[in-house]
Amino acid sequence: MKKMKAQNVKGTQDYLPNDEMVRKEITKVLEDTFVQYGCKPLETPILNYTEILASKYGGGAEILEEMYTLSDRGGRELALRYDLTIPFAKVVAMNPGIRMPFKRYEIGKVFRDGPVKTGRFREFTQCDVDMVGVESKIAEAELMKMALDAFNKLGLNVIIQFNNRKLLTGMLEFFETDNKWINKVVLILDKLEKTGLEAVLAELTELGLQASTIKLIEQFLIESNNKSYSYFEQASQKNIIVKQGIEELKELEMYLEYLDLKEQCVFNPFLARGLEIYTGTIYEIFLADQSIKSSIGSGGRYDNAIGGLMGTEESFSTVGISFGLDVIYSAITASNNIFTKNTYVDFYIIPLNTKKESLLLACYLRRKGYNVELELGNKKIGKALDKANKEKIRTVIIIGEDEVKNNQFKIKDMASGEERYEEFMFKS
Amino acid sequence: MKKMKAQNVKGTQDYLPNDEMVRKEITKVLEDTFVQYGCKPLETPILNYTEILASKYGGGAEILEEMYTLSDRGGRELALRYDLTIPFAKVVAMNPGIRMPFKRYEIGKVFRDGPVKTGRFREFTQCDVDMVGVESKIAEAELMKMALDAFNKLGLNVIIQFNNRKLLTGMLEFFETDNKWINKVVLILDKLEKTGLEAVLAELTELGLQASTIKLIEQFLIESNNKSYSYFEQASQKNIIVKQGIEELKELEMYLEYLDLKEQCVFNPFLARGLEIYTGTIYEIFLADQSIKSSIGSGGRYDNAIGGLMGTEESFSTVGISFGLDVIYSAITASNNIFTKNTYVDFYIIPLNTKKESLLLACYLRRKGYNVELELGNKKIGKALDKANKEKIRTVIIIGEDEVKNNQFKIKDMASGEERYEEFMFKS
Repeated sequence: MKKMKAQNVKGTQDYLPNDEMVRKEITKVLEDTFVQYGCKPLETPILNYTEILASKYGGGAEILEEMYTLSDRGGRELALRYDLTIPFAKVVAMNPGIRMPFKRYEIGKVFRDGPVKTGRFREFTQCDVDMVGVESKIAEAELMKMALDAFNKLGLNVIIQFNNRKLLTGMLEFFETDNKWINKVVLILDKLEKTGLEAVLAELTELGLQASTIKLIEQFLIESNNKSYSYFEQASQKNIIVKQGIEELKELEMYLEYLDLKEQCVFNPFLARGLEIYTGTIYEIFLADQSIKSSIGSGGRYDNAIGGLMGTEESFSTVGISFGLDVIYSAITASNNIFTKNTYVDFYIIPLNTKKESLLLACYLRRKGYNVELELGNKKIGKALDKANKEKIRTVIIIGEDEVKNNQFKIKDMASGEERYEEFMFKS
Repeated sequence: MKKMKAQNVKGTQDYLPNDEMVRKEITKVLEDTFVQYGCKPLETPILNYTEILASKYGGGAEILEEMYTLSDRGGRELALRYDLTIPFAKVVAMNPGIRMPFKRYEIGKVFRDGPVKTGRFREFTQCDVDMVGVESKIAEAELMKMALDAFNKLGLNVIIQFNNRKLLTGMLEFFETDNKWINKVVLILDKLEKTGLEAVLAELTELGLQASTIKLIEQFLIESNNKSYSYFEQASQKNIIVKQGIEELKELEMYLEYLDLKEQCVFNPFLARGLEIYTGTIYEIFLADQSIKSSIGSGGRYDNAIGGLMGTEESFSTVGISFGLDVIYSAITASNNIFTKNTYVDFYIIPLNTKKESLLLACYLRRKGYNVELELGNKKIGKALDKANKEKIRTVIIIGEDEVKNNQFKIKDMASGEERYEEFMFKS
């Protein structure tokens, strides 16, 4: 027989119970919060037609390169989804009778065959909320508040940075950036915080922008740093896109102010988000203590994706937010907060030559609603108590032959060491 | 622009909110039951090395044909998992330090590129419990009881049929069936209930078994129908495998009897389970009213898979049970029972020109723990109340400009039509 090595594919991993318990707690907090905000659950397939995922309203060229593709036995060209946004847009496009606004959440696996770095996997879980049918910026305000609620419940302090794509692209137009470069320049500006001003300017020069445009962009990067809208007044009188961007930002801020969220939600005129799909508001969520540099959630408004997938040029008001389970898990683990739950077990029953009687008691306690682990491995009492300690099980039940004879069982509190007996009618 | 049709891949589907809410309820009942039985959560990747999934300890030839395969950018030969059992065995093989017995549950997507029939999909969800390290048949008894508990909570009446692979293969040996045909014959006998005696005998003849062996098998199929062990006594004295099978069955029945489960757990000497992996006990769960013919859960003991994956010939006592979410969903929907929950929403707020104030109240109620849907779609009151009725929302809150002025809101009970006012301090 050929010897095989049991191993995982690069970029994938198993989550053993101690990790998975924490991940499930995080998922539950997110899901409960989504439901509190009136979101409905949706589940979409992982397998999709390549053609749909490769749509220009999808993730853009960089993500498409990372798409896993395959053929089925019927010769169909398929791909594994790389996000939950396109599947959402697909569902809306396929179900014209759906009641608007439609607000759904989905938590599921996505796949990207990209570089593997710390905390970056090829198969990972996203937790998304998206809604379609709301033009008002109250939609963004509600999603931002929802994110703050969720992270608050998770014990993580966060800051949300926000911006509007129209402001950024309008300013670039105003600086007479060649239209074909605007998306590219947006992606370069997005790296400002990471690479610094010099590197950004060098990249713009390399791209071949006019010197006068680069000069204006440089001034913009330096001067607008006070982050107030007044800086954009001049441009907004001359460029309609800048004007729209400012108006949308002001509408959003009105809601944030009314909800007292201005301290946690901060305007950042250079925030760009790496994806071409966005058409208006964009936001990214960061840990307040910056112990993790990358964002732990993000999203924005993308009004053209659904119409694009339907093959019309119709615009659908669409806003979303996405949370990465792995990065949140890293943050939670590092912060060592309440979520490091150790066991689900209420009672651990150790049978001493009393298997069937112990199973009967286990069934009785489960019927009462308790979580009961029955030791099935013929462990001696010492080994079994060791295990209880290691797995942080609080209460142990011991059943020997004498206990069965006397119709009772022994309960041991592992913290105090206290023992007591309870009565239980075993069958003869 | 090329026009694309938004559609799903054959054998996959979206689950829209009304369906998905029921699926989530089912999943929660199963998961809670698994945890009550001391199972721990495990999450394994969907992407695997083809070599591991194609192991002879895997799903067998039929499933391997249905495996989706692909290559990644690094040229690795990958496949999508077709069950959760091999990934479980892989985890045990990869983690020699894991504490035994190890009992885990996993709920996740699996993929099979097979024929699409009613209720059979190419991408579907399995809910599995498996444990390794327990030789005693108390393991099977506990899993069978767990299944009965779960289906009881789901409001479904079920019968579990059980058998032991050793009994069946031992009897075939005793009938002098050529060893190379035994697995094949087991699969043919498995179809007895579906195709009838004549068809089974015809298939055995076609296979080329000796006439004397076929005669003995025929007698067996007819005479052993009283389903008691006494029938097998003679064979068990002459064939060690039959003897072991009977002993294991008796051990299991002792537990089932002690737990009063004999009415719901029925011995069926012809039950075979389609997979080669099994080495001992096997069981399948059926609806008691037979409204769905196929099994809604199944499993058994497979002691060779983990050792096989580790490349040793070592035997690991391993038992599992698997539930299919889709077939349970079909059963629940047909039975029209308690699980047809219609909404998660406690309050539906309708703003009448009071968006920001309504959002403030929504946030207040969510902080109190309620699920609140805020109407963001500029619906007029009539349309909004229509929606509340259609979505079975019980309680609606209406906030007009007068209400804001008077620091109050209107609550309407949709069932009785009753309305009342409550006070709330809106900010000016």
